Amino acid sequence: MNFSDKLAQQIKLKNNPSVLGLDPKLEYIPPSIKEKYFNENVDSLKAAANCIIEFNKRLIDALYEVIPAVKPQLAYYEMYGTEGIRAFSETIRYAKKKGLLVIADGKRNDIGTTAQAYAKAYLGRTDINGIEEESFGADALTVNAYLGIDGIKPFIEECEKNDKGLFILVKTSNPSSGQLQDLILQDGRTIYEAMADLVSQWGSTTTGQCEYSSIGAVIGATYPKQLEELRNRMPESWILVPGYGAQGGTAADVAAAFDKNGLGAVVNASRSLMCAYNLEAWKNKFTHEDFAEAARAEAERMRDDINIAVSSK
Amino acid sequence: MNFSDKLAQQIKLKNNPSVLGLDPKLEYIPPSIKEKYFNENVDSLKAAANCIIEFNKRLIDALYEVIPAVKPQLAYYEMYGTEGIRAFSETIRYAKKKGLLVIADGKRNDIGTTAQAYAKAYLGRTDINGIEEESFGADALTVNAYLGIDGIKPFIEECEKNDKGLFILVKTSNPSSGQLQDLILQDGRTIYEAMADLVSQWGSTTTGQCEYSSIGAVIGATYPKQLEELRNRMPESWILVPGYGAQGGTAADVAAAFDKNGLGAVVNASRSLMCAYNLEAWKNKFTHEDFAEAARAEAERMRDDINIAVSSK
Repeated sequence: MNFSDKLAQQIKLKNNPSVLGLDPKLEYIPPSIKEKYFNENVDSLKAAANCIIEFNKRLIDALYEVIPAVKPQLAYYEMYGTEGIRAFSETIRYAKKKGLLVIADGKRNDIGTTAQAYAKAYLGRTDINGIEEESFGADALTVNAYLGIDGIKPFIEECEKNDKGLFILVKTSNPSSGQLQDLILQDGRTIYEAMADLVSQWGSTTTGQCEYSSIGAVIGATYPKQLEELRNRMPESWILVPGYGAQGGTAADVAAAFDKNGLGAVVNASRSLMCAYNLEAWKNKFTHEDFAEAARAEAERMRDDINIAVSSK
Repeated sequence: MNFSDKLAQQIKLKNNPSVLGLDPKLEYIPPSIKEKYFNENVDSLKAAANCIIEFNKRLIDALYEVIPAVKPQLAYYEMYGTEGIRAFSETIRYAKKKGLLVIADGKRNDIGTTAQAYAKAYLGRTDINGIEEESFGADALTVNAYLGIDGIKPFIEECEKNDKGLFILVKTSNPSSGQLQDLILQDGRTIYEAMADLVSQWGSTTTGQCEYSSIGAVIGATYPKQLEELRNRMPESWILVPGYGAQGGTAADVAAAFDKNGLGAVVNASRSLMCAYNLEAWKNKFTHEDFAEAARAEAERMRDDINIAVSSK
């Protein structure tokens, strides 16, 4: 089954198109976990990585029955050097063991041979003296296509070979995303529309039974008008929608990314799930130590919030 | 001294604007090194990482008196998972000990808070319970600015704080770089020219004594006409020029990136230095086991090749 169909299956199974963004910061982690690892006699980067692993595992334990996928953001692991990458790798392994799909959020990009190395790192296997080893083993990766098709093709090849997926940046959720992406071309398209057209074209060989392609797009919830236009412009592309919750996107905003069957998009929430204990709605019910239970409650609320908005489109 | 001035100083000291790209593949590493580590009773990813560390160190030992900087390409380390990142980290530490500047080639990009995490990982320090630890400690990083200024500002802030540098993708060296980058805007500029203008503007606060900014650009040697135009368009930007050697760029091609004083650009060569033992010019003189001596001979030839082309502009 290709990535697109695995994603559709997981979303239907959980009746939930929302994804847990695992962007851990030490300040999100409750005192009991920190005390446990920082009191061990190890260097502080290693202790920080151990805290992150336990924090992520407890979130995964609390949410794996409710959500289809997790999206660890590589920057928050690279921040802790080699030890951070160990935490990233361990997080992926654990999430997969619990049946979750893993979208590695790395926004990788490079020229052909180097893109191939990234593709093998995240979506394939690395040849070591004739034996192939899996390095990270994610199910999908976010990428940036500023370099054009020969920086993307090596990723698509691994997707086809190993039933993996890609999400290519089209219109990002940040305030200045328009500085380049909204510039208008001579043919009247914006740069993000030109990118959307490339993504549609590149995805045409990996369409699944569910009628979506394994080569999807990233479009921010913070630009609901563009999200709606792009949903129509790229009808076969899964859309990964960041920006719900802490960044300001609402369920009504993200509803535009879905088709009439409730498919076609996954909505990411990071901080609002990881720090649900801190939200107005939950802070009187849960303490910082109850972060995982709070995340579960918020994930169920988010699921219902989005499902209601999608079904009343 | 800011990054721009450190780079100018190193180039003058070595009388060489060329950079060793450290993109190690196992097939480049000679049998004696592989036998040493693969015969140890460790897992193969760890053995591969140990091979890469020794290979890189021997290249650095042979070249540190001749070159100003090294440019490890992250993809080739991520390919070996956590162990690969250990090799990346150890390579940076060793290169710095030998007085070399280190340009981490990661082409990182993300929205504000996440870009900040990447900036701390490569160019700054990570706060761990109030104590700041250096994760990778590179001197500069390559980045992709598809997301606009708020994905770049966190990197510039670390550059200003810690005397570090950036190289932002403008016109890349790969065959399909024009697929997006050459599209023409309504105002007549190409996308890569619009990107060049943004880079110039963003770099205006970090100009060094040498009159170049610490915020530079990446422009491929494989597009010599655009390289010349962009040299004039962004007179205060250092240009990191990939594509010399194995990708086909010649000394005459890269000469366009330099000013009349021989400054303003650094030229990267990866495969042609790492695998110099294999080049027509050296293969009768050096065996695979002599890879480091071959790299030294080729680095001196490359230095002279570029210096002659630049001085006869």
